[in-house]
Amino acid sequence: MTIVRQPTRAGVRDAAAKVAAILPPTPLFFAEIKGVEVAFKAESLQPIGAFKIRGAWHRLTAIDESQRSKGVVAFSSGNHAQGVAWAARELGMPAVIVMPEDAPRVKRDSTLSLGAEVVGCDRGKGVREKIAAHLAHARGAVLVPSFDDAWVIEGQGSVGIEAEDQFEEFGLDDGIVHVVTPCGGGGLAAGLALALPDAAITVVEPEGWDDMRRSLEAGWIEEAADEAPPTACDSLQTRRVSQLTFDVLSRRSATGVAVAEAEIRTAQRWAAHNLRIVVEPGGAVAIAALLAGKVTPEEGMLVIVSGGNVDADAYAAVLGRDD
Amino acid sequence: MTIVRQPTRAGVRDAAAKVAAILPPTPLFFAEIKGVEVAFKAESLQPIGAFKIRGAWHRLTAIDESQRSKGVVAFSSGNHAQGVAWAARELGMPAVIVMPEDAPRVKRDSTLSLGAEVVGCDRGKGVREKIAAHLAHARGAVLVPSFDDAWVIEGQGSVGIEAEDQFEEFGLDDGIVHVVTPCGGGGLAAGLALALPDAAITVVEPEGWDDMRRSLEAGWIEEAADEAPPTACDSLQTRRVSQLTFDVLSRRSATGVAVAEAEIRTAQRWAAHNLRIVVEPGGAVAIAALLAGKVTPEEGMLVIVSGGNVDADAYAAVLGRDD
Repeated sequence: MTIVRQPTRAGVRDAAAKVAAILPPTPLFFAEIKGVEVAFKAESLQPIGAFKIRGAWHRLTAIDESQRSKGVVAFSSGNHAQGVAWAARELGMPAVIVMPEDAPRVKRDSTLSLGAEVVGCDRGKGVREKIAAHLAHARGAVLVPSFDDAWVIEGQGSVGIEAEDQFEEFGLDDGIVHVVTPCGGGGLAAGLALALPDAAITVVEPEGWDDMRRSLEAGWIEEAADEAPPTACDSLQTRRVSQLTFDVLSRRSATGVAVAEAEIRTAQRWAAHNLRIVVEPGGAVAIAALLAGKVTPEEGMLVIVSGGNVDADAYAAVLGRDD
Repeated sequence: MTIVRQPTRAGVRDAAAKVAAILPPTPLFFAEIKGVEVAFKAESLQPIGAFKIRGAWHRLTAIDESQRSKGVVAFSSGNHAQGVAWAARELGMPAVIVMPEDAPRVKRDSTLSLGAEVVGCDRGKGVREKIAAHLAHARGAVLVPSFDDAWVIEGQGSVGIEAEDQFEEFGLDDGIVHVVTPCGGGGLAAGLALALPDAAITVVEPEGWDDMRRSLEAGWIEEAADEAPPTACDSLQTRRVSQLTFDVLSRRSATGVAVAEAEIRTAQRWAAHNLRIVVEPGGAVAIAALLAGKVTPEEGMLVIVSGGNVDADAYAAVLGRDD
């Protein structure tokens, strides 16, 4: 039996210190929704446009120096890819990313421009995981999963420590009482749950891809249906969450909600107008849950805006619509 | 003869300390233009979506407490309006803003939502200044000019001190060697010139509204032509700069360039794609100057992104274009 390393709050605090040493905090914005002022953490403004830079940095810096020359391998639709590519470049390590052929161009181009090698694959069930594992084995490289990994979960959780510090700086002494976050495989959500042990946790997914919501309700992991509907949230199309992320969230009694595609577009427009930031569909689902009345805004609420990597034409089309 | 208070570097430092006590620093982003990494200061991410919050805060906090109940009056197409309204609300002062009828809806709505009274006027030569002066006299209120004022110039200059500190935090020990900034009346540009005594200064204006550029070349103040062409840069349509701002920039041998409307739209799209932020036309002119090759990017360059208040439909139209 393999002993799987479990993510811990101490690990999240360690990750937060490592991240703070290399990346300035992302802004915390305040805006009213339904008359209540809520805090928005703009991880879309990270250098790679997403929170994934945190987990990648915490994981790659934990690789023994003697192992670094063999590099890392990751599979990702794009944001984790960029995070790993960024961290590898900073550390002078080679990186290979297995990426679905239908990933947004902007994510593929950016991964390449960060110096990583990109290998294309179909978005089929388990295909990219297998290719990545094969490549890592062949090269002696470290495989860096996008969420099913204690280091990665701890790294993503650093955003919670950073936001907590910002609440203090703003004089919000009661701290974060409820965090609402986008959820794909659950790495970010689980990290936040560890970072903020006293906060309520709500995870938000696109309709049809709300397998974490269903899993938390059922008490065991349920997969997304094979016939799950199309969604603009490329970053949240995870068919199955992991035992690590599920366990952390389940122990914290996290709950989930699902939002519709039109609600997500409304949230993207709201963010452009009210926060003056560009948000990708998957990055806007937590905002969407509040705007659609599926989560009730309250004082001390932290809403995670997780990413801003969206193709220019797709984004222009969303802003030009009125739905 | 009235002695006009002159803005000073000590005043800028004082303003920077006052601003830092109430507002977190705006992000400093790095991105490559023509292969050179340049820093972008996103003042569009201030709570009111523009740097004007700085000058307003420095000016209003300098008003004697016994005078505060009589309030303030300002004239502005919108960003200064919001800055004054925000500062007045923080200090519990009444504020009246004289605003042209054709100001962007988003700026008008936001000024109202900050609790200010808005008085409409035509965008005619000198009209709003006269209305504002009359209102201030009638109420015993303090008139807060948008750029022709030592306090306001010093306040805007605080962005230079803040950026300099960020350069240090990023380990850029050579500091800011050249600052490129949008210019309307020149308050921001003059403030930056005082804040950064060793940096070269380039001011950027829309074509036809490049009266600061022409003034700096001529050695005396030249006005914009009566038949100046239409521009999307509502925040930079200043017919005549002031002696205070001109003198500071002239002494520092600042120079100017003008950018075309299509170049400004390209810069707005570039910022959405590369910095993931929403920028108004007037806020994008310095980026435009670099992208259009009118200013050569160099190491140690600071590019000011001054504002992000743009009507949703106008912004969607810019992103949907391809010019």
